[in-house]
Amino acid sequence: MNHIQFDATKPMDIIPVGRATIDLNPNELHRPLYEVATFSMYLGGSPANIAVGMARLGKKVGFLGKVSNDQFGQFIKGYFQKEGVDTSQLSAAQNGESLGLTFTEILSPTESRILMYRNQVADLQLSTEDVSEEYIKNSKILLISGTALATSPSREACFLAMKYAKKHGTIVIFDIDYRSYTWKSKEEISVYYSLAGKMSDIIIGSREEFDLMEILEAENTVKGHQLAEQYLGYGNKIAIIKYGKKGSIAYCNDRRAYKVDSFSIKLLKSFGGGDAYASAFIYGLLENWDVPKALEFATASASMVVASHSCSAAMPKAADIQKFIAERTEKVITEIRWRDDVE
Amino acid sequence: MNHIQFDATKPMDIIPVGRATIDLNPNELHRPLYEVATFSMYLGGSPANIAVGMARLGKKVGFLGKVSNDQFGQFIKGYFQKEGVDTSQLSAAQNGESLGLTFTEILSPTESRILMYRNQVADLQLSTEDVSEEYIKNSKILLISGTALATSPSREACFLAMKYAKKHGTIVIFDIDYRSYTWKSKEEISVYYSLAGKMSDIIIGSREEFDLMEILEAENTVKGHQLAEQYLGYGNKIAIIKYGKKGSIAYCNDRRAYKVDSFSIKLLKSFGGGDAYASAFIYGLLENWDVPKALEFATASASMVVASHSCSAAMPKAADIQKFIAERTEKVITEIRWRDDVE
Amino acid sequence: MNHIQFDATKPMDIIPVGRATIDLNPNELHRPLYEVATFSMYLGGSPANIAVGMARLGKKVGFLGKVSNDQFGQFIKGYFQKEGVDTSQLSAAQNGESLGLTFTEILSPTESRILMYRNQVADLQLSTEDVSEEYIKNSKILLISGTALATSPSREACFLAMKYAKKHGTIVIFDIDYRSYTWKSKEEISVYYSLAGKMSDIIIGSREEFDLMEILEAENTVKGHQLAEQYLGYGNKIAIIKYGKKGSIAYCNDRRAYKVDSFSIKLLKSFGGGDAYASAFIYGLLENWDVPKALEFATASASMVVASHSCSAAMPKAADIQKFIAERTEKVITEIRWRDDVE
Amino acid sequence: MNHIQFDATKPMDIIPVGRATIDLNPNELHRPLYEVATFSMYLGGSPANIAVGMARLGKKVGFLGKVSNDQFGQFIKGYFQKEGVDTSQLSAAQNGESLGLTFTEILSPTESRILMYRNQVADLQLSTEDVSEEYIKNSKILLISGTALATSPSREACFLAMKYAKKHGTIVIFDIDYRSYTWKSKEEISVYYSLAGKMSDIIIGSREEFDLMEILEAENTVKGHQLAEQYLGYGNKIAIIKYGKKGSIAYCNDRRAYKVDSFSIKLLKSFGGGDAYASAFIYGLLENWDVPKALEFATASASMVVASHSCSAAMPKAADIQKFIAERTEKVITEIRWRDDVE
Repeated sequence: MNHIQFDATKPMDIIPVGRATIDLNPNELHRPLYEVATFSMYLGGSPANIAVGMARLGKKVGFLGKVSNDQFGQFIKGYFQKEGVDTSQLSAAQNGESLGLTFTEILSPTESRILMYRNQVADLQLSTEDVSEEYIKNSKILLISGTALATSPSREACFLAMKYAKKHGTIVIFDIDYRSYTWKSKEEISVYYSLAGKMSDIIIGSREEFDLMEILEAENTVKGHQLAEQYLGYGNKIAIIKYGKKGSIAYCNDRRAYKVDSFSIKLLKSFGGGDAYASAFIYGLLENWDVPKALEFATASASMVVASHSCSAAMPKAADIQKFIAERTEKVITEIRWRDDVE
Repeated sequence: MNHIQFDATKPMDIIPVGRATIDLNPNELHRPLYEVATFSMYLGGSPANIAVGMARLGKKVGFLGKVSNDQFGQFIKGYFQKEGVDTSQLSAAQNGESLGLTFTEILSPTESRILMYRNQVADLQLSTEDVSEEYIKNSKILLISGTALATSPSREACFLAMKYAKKHGTIVIFDIDYRSYTWKSKEEISVYYSLAGKMSDIIIGSREEFDLMEILEAENTVKGHQLAEQYLGYGNKIAIIKYGKKGSIAYCNDRRAYKVDSFSIKLLKSFGGGDAYASAFIYGLLENWDVPKALEFATASASMVVASHSCSAAMPKAADIQKFIAERTEKVITEIRWRDDVE
Repeated sequence: MNHIQFDATKPMDIIPVGRATIDLNPNELHRPLYEVATFSMYLGGSPANIAVGMARLGKKVGFLGKVSNDQFGQFIKGYFQKEGVDTSQLSAAQNGESLGLTFTEILSPTESRILMYRNQVADLQLSTEDVSEEYIKNSKILLISGTALATSPSREACFLAMKYAKKHGTIVIFDIDYRSYTWKSKEEISVYYSLAGKMSDIIIGSREEFDLMEILEAENTVKGHQLAEQYLGYGNKIAIIKYGKKGSIAYCNDRRAYKVDSFSIKLLKSFGGGDAYASAFIYGLLENWDVPKALEFATASASMVVASHSCSAAMPKAADIQKFIAERTEKVITEIRWRDDVE
Repeated sequence: MNHIQFDATKPMDIIPVGRATIDLNPNELHRPLYEVATFSMYLGGSPANIAVGMARLGKKVGFLGKVSNDQFGQFIKGYFQKEGVDTSQLSAAQNGESLGLTFTEILSPTESRILMYRNQVADLQLSTEDVSEEYIKNSKILLISGTALATSPSREACFLAMKYAKKHGTIVIFDIDYRSYTWKSKEEISVYYSLAGKMSDIIIGSREEFDLMEILEAENTVKGHQLAEQYLGYGNKIAIIKYGKKGSIAYCNDRRAYKVDSFSIKLLKSFGGGDAYASAFIYGLLENWDVPKALEFATASASMVVASHSCSAAMPKAADIQKFIAERTEKVITEIRWRDDVE
């Protein structure tokens, strides 16, 4: 059963909101950053990756965001246009803000760190003035990346966008996407994440992110299904909780729960899979697939991306994901009992 | 019928949250500020006035707020203590913030202006760290003044306090109390006021404030009852819309509406009545009176305050309000049809 | 001997630069601020007081400063105009900055404290764009109040004004006028005060202020004449060091030094004398008096002001100062040996 | 004649002050930045380049600066240590400031642009607390890079360092090194550059930088020697004015002037020569060479660096510069008449 009804009259499929940045990935792998000599440049930022991911999957994709008013901002715009992402609502910051940068440190296939440039960053300058009610009204989905809630004026822009989405029947997906940068306190995180989680239709986050949202200590005895129930109780139809290498669980409002595992692949790096997962899962929902099938597609896409050097540039096409699945016999989706946890 | 059930096991009656400031009222009346020679000093700030108002009415009153770390902060603390308001949660700002000042310009009995000192003001430094879950849990009512939502960190402190109140069955009263200072845009106001209005049990504001909350133009054709219905729909039990000299209307969730007029008095100034009104109305609810009786008490108290030189210092005792009402024969409370407006 | 040659062709006598604020002095004397009930409003701020002082003495006075864009800004402008101070270069801050306020706490005749409102203050918004080269060129004297060096953009405005003054033969008087507010560190104070002290022709400050300028500890063994010599060495013609109740010493570049005592008067408050002193001393120089005569006039004016309730409003006229001196027989000016200290 | 006497008892030769950053130079040359795929990482920042340059030339070099508290800060520290630059006074910023980045766009051999990351940059957080009087006292030379004057607290740190240098006989070299970033207005630039130019012994800058310092229009008729005379008048011994491809002129306080031309080389990029020039010139002065010989050494070093891919990494050793000069027969140093300009 598909739990989400999309309004087929809306011409756009999805509008991710938030940061489009640059990833600078080291060409010399598996060493500390200060021993790296050269970097390759890619488009990055979770909602930007999802935009590219969905465009590669053939969907009609917009973007609501702000970039720097310089050559790097031009790079983002040009990249989106090449991929077919609409850039009519991609504006340029006007007060010297910089594009966000993420220097990746790939210490080993399983160990990565990042060094972020997020001071006076362009994406967090998105403001309520940049939010077009008409643009949101015309899209089936609005995807909010939680990083965009970290500070004003981007925070208010997101809440206003969600307000318009609720008013016009646009489905809201809240991808918690927590980054420690910019937030001032745990309580602040909790306040705004929980306000956003009350306005969404689908909520996706790691177990750590759900804990943050509820101000739970690192070691707590709350069960995953209890967290999911809380947000289904606010009106969400699907809540996905991710447990890193242990996989993830999707809780649906028909009280069915699905455990999702990874396909076995040779890891090159330990990041980038989440955006591929989100893109492919949303694609499945838009195709009106049932949840388990969409989840299988999602985990396949994630596996393909973590085996490659970049994130955005590696986003696969639908046929390639299908071929990847067809070549494998592993069972990665299992319906579980509601109260079961990952282990 | 009383629409609100208070938890009688909670020892504190009410905790107003937000600004406690100083009013400097001119002693030479009815002239522009720059021709004034001397000022009298009073405690001010809407939630501080309500705290004093409720203490004068014999209720157990706390306060959650931040004052300056100087002689003026001491003045506030001393004044509260003299009035019997608990100051255990009244902290002092630590980075040179000043206490807010309001210089009043009384141009005529009906015309007043104010000149505010709100730059780097202490009250807006209230932060999530200052919010005690236990303190809120132990109070029947939490009263949020909308001015405290104007900026961080006070904004997050308020949402966290409301989150705790909902968790522990403490009634939330949202007094919109809009001041143009500090807010950045109309959309920002709307975003946060409407989020607060979804979390409250009683909402009180002027018609202009409700319009702001919904981003309605000054000249719009939306009816008062439509605005009230929207917020009753979010779960409020009572919504009061104030129309200045034309009186106010209280909409209850049993679909009954009451028009409230003023008693005839000799005006000295045109401000200060709102906080007396709120205090006396809440007093009535706590006394388990029905809504019309509480409203009559409220408008009587308001009339008494606008006839005097200050606001906080003039807050009447219950017996005085009853005497004021007993001496008058005017009918100031009228049940109206749901769809009627003030005129 | 008069050590300063003024350019008689310049039409304006003096342009004080810096803050014009409001003093709120308590009407109930000799008690802590939080027990005060009413305040009287006066023009305040050291350079503004000096401007009024010199206008009362019949000189042609301008002013370079910034006030708030509200009723208090209008009060300053109106007050200056009434006193005959030119306000053509008194501009209004445009981003919601407030006029500085000084609430005075008069605990006893000899003990005073102040509570200042200096957050986002209008006067420190004076910027290089507000500095007219022509205006400075046309004045015999430019008087810089050190408080205006405390932060940008006022700091740069002052240095630019001094640069223009040096270029056009306008005499620079540097009144150190240290206030702890706004400065970030001792080293910062020292850096900018000493840069200003290298550009001035006359420097006036308390012993504590000279110590600050040289980053000297509170208990040091440096002699007053050594400090004076340093600044005379940079090109100053007169250096005046003030020692509070013990009087002051004027060091001149002809190696003569004068000790200045106070006249015996009944003190009402312990502040406000400095600006009267500066005004009357500068008046004497402009009248081409010798230094001792100018100093006697200065200390007489200071004595008259500390015996009254305000500072600006009490600034005396020349005839009144002369009458005050004529009625007294005390010898308040003594030539001392260069190496003598106050005790 | 060598115009500068260094104090041979001071153990350190030079302490450059200011920014140490990272240059990211494109590996794909001669195309716009948004078409670049990979970047190489080098140490950058004018005073850091000079530090490396002087260390390569065998001098004892310190550094006074602030880097980020992350892997990039470690890169700088490690690089300095490898080159033999003392890092005892290289501190780490503590409030999330980032290391400055310079992405270079090499459009052609003669046309370059840069894209800088200077928002909340670590180097401008250098503060007066970081300035050790002892460290400066023990060095023959203090080199101030004008970029460090652009904002507080770095600005005050520089003036304090210069104050200590003057007190202890350490020679001050002021390298104007103007970057448009961070400065607020032309007048601000002029105020602080001219204050620094009054405290230095050697001043080096482009003609555009001298014009900025004097608030001169782009098209003005002031002669180079007039600008030089002004700063020699303040006490500088040598003033060097650079005219880009047209060479530079060194004005000495014995009224002799030298024109400096470039050696003919194959340009790879149009930047990086200035720091090589400064390093080699200062080296010559420390070696007690006469000015023309030091200038020849300087221009040779500059030519060698602009022919290579980086700046810091390409800094030559003394023997290599001598070999470079020995292989050439061009006359690049010419004594000119004082009043001659470059053309």
